[in-house]
Amino acid sequence: MHNPDHSQDVTAGEVLAPYLHARAADFLRGLRLHSESGSDTAGAEEAARTLRGAARRISGTLHTFRPLLDAAWADQLRTELAWLSGTLALEQACTSRLVRLVDALSRLSNGSGPVPAARGTDSAGLTVGAARAGALLERQLTLARTRAHSASLQALGSARFHAIADAVALLASEVPLGPAGAAPAVEVIDAPAELAERRLLDAVAALPLTRAAHPYNADALELATGETQDAPWHHTRALLRLHRYATEALHTGGEPDSVLYEAARALDRHRDAAEAATAAATAARTPRIAPATAYALGVLHADQRHEVEAARFAFQRAWRRTTAPVP
Amino acid sequence: MHNPDHSQDVTAGEVLAPYLHARAADFLRGLRLHSESGSDTAGAEEAARTLRGAARRISGTLHTFRPLLDAAWADQLRTELAWLSGTLALEQACTSRLVRLVDALSRLSNGSGPVPAARGTDSAGLTVGAARAGALLERQLTLARTRAHSASLQALGSARFHAIADAVALLASEVPLGPAGAAPAVEVIDAPAELAERRLLDAVAALPLTRAAHPYNADALELATGETQDAPWHHTRALLRLHRYATEALHTGGEPDSVLYEAARALDRHRDAAEAATAAATAARTPRIAPATAYALGVLHADQRHEVEAARFAFQRAWRRTTAPVP
Repeated sequence: MHNPDHSQDVTAGEVLAPYLHARAADFLRGLRLHSESGSDTAGAEEAARTLRGAARRISGTLHTFRPLLDAAWADQLRTELAWLSGTLALEQACTSRLVRLVDALSRLSNGSGPVPAARGTDSAGLTVGAARAGALLERQLTLARTRAHSASLQALGSARFHAIADAVALLASEVPLGPAGAAPAVEVIDAPAELAERRLLDAVAALPLTRAAHPYNADALELATGETQDAPWHHTRALLRLHRYATEALHTGGEPDSVLYEAARALDRHRDAAEAATAAATAARTPRIAPATAYALGVLHADQRHEVEAARFAFQRAWRRTTAPVP
Repeated sequence: MHNPDHSQDVTAGEVLAPYLHARAADFLRGLRLHSESGSDTAGAEEAARTLRGAARRISGTLHTFRPLLDAAWADQLRTELAWLSGTLALEQACTSRLVRLVDALSRLSNGSGPVPAARGTDSAGLTVGAARAGALLERQLTLARTRAHSASLQALGSARFHAIADAVALLASEVPLGPAGAAPAVEVIDAPAELAERRLLDAVAALPLTRAAHPYNADALELATGETQDAPWHHTRALLRLHRYATEALHTGGEPDSVLYEAARALDRHRDAAEAATAAATAARTPRIAPATAYALGVLHADQRHEVEAARFAFQRAWRRTTAPVP
């Protein structure tokens, strides 16, 4: 974690400032994109993605390097950024969940499209069930997305958001430091980053990786307790993100670590599949659905839990490569 | 495949006869076990297993080494043995299918047993669905097993069966050979065994093994076309069995090939899981079931198709080891 560029003359604040300035500038660019996008959906999505990416990085940096910053300011801005990125993420999450589930249904139905009349009644019954399940999910997730979209627009027009934008605009030129921020970087900057890494390593050590390394362990598929079982993986995902942002902040301009990125992608996929499985289970509790619809939703639920298991397998494989050089 | 024990003096008939005599003796032992078992269920099962194992091996040997045998006799006995082992297999298949599905349901319900009253309605709804699905499967498969049991008893008391028993009793002391059976073993016995092996290798070469080697390829899970997709694997299972029996016949007393056995077990598991998935799908088409029951059956179906995929993975792994020394 020690960076040879931190000579004795450079303060911790001077190391962190360029990264925070750049992310604040990204945020402001996202804001500009948003006001220019108008009714352009692709532009609005790009703006939201830029805003969220910058907000996550600023917030992560404030969290990890809090001991070097003005703590009260950092805590306050971090809370506000968490609210903003949470609100903005929801619409995108609904969209990608729907795409994921509809894709899975079409794969499960063997991409057969409309049911040919000649097909046997048995499999046709299941295909009809899959079509109805797709329609049900589309209805439910489109409604959720519309609500999330309104919430997003409302958030971006609120006084609360304008206060955040003002704080980030200030951050683009000045980082409010604490007393330790003026200390030589070489003395104070590694400890917080190492703590972030240590937390990640501890979380990964607590994961059932040996089990995950055996393909087809059928560990992730349970009707009742999926959520409890997923929590340590979601927690690891959050810590891996903090670790990646801390590395970004200290190695500005360096190569991104592609294996860590792959591990992070596996955990993203883990989260997406887990949430899609939950959405299928939720849809199955809709009153008065046909048994064939419920059946297709059960298949879909299991398929997505299978994806959860596959993502754990992918994560342990990527992770083993990150740690392989240090046996 | 060439066996160094076949000196120029030994005829093909003399090589095959000890194996066929021994399997015929096994068959007659199974028959004795059956008549002694009375109301002893475990004894009756043991008898049926012995009869089936012997019938399969005799029938396989008659098939592979047909060119060396009295062809009309071999074809006739083979047809009769196929009818017998098919009839006897059905009851055991129903039992193991039920055990497999009930085990899977209990694993999917996280082994929670009776639903505790304090549990949230959502997961309780699913657990109730799983319990109902289990009861439905138990009803359907127990009925099928009872029918299979009656059919078995009827078969074992039939004139058709007594004719088979008489033919096998003759086989215990004399093998009806064709003209080639009197030829030196070294000249004629390898070709039929090699043909059985060649057919197996061709069937395996046609399987999508590269795809199966990637865990979590999600290839086996489709709502509609599972059966078509499974056929080449079932075909390979039958050919692998013929190859194993031919090897047994020519290497009497040698070590069984444990890797081939493992590959065969993987294909057994493939077949069992595929049939269990079909049973779940069939149960889901029962009229007037509750959506929660249908949902649990959908999860179960997908779980068993996942098992099909896992069995393909296990097969390719075992198979790669059989062929590894000959790259």
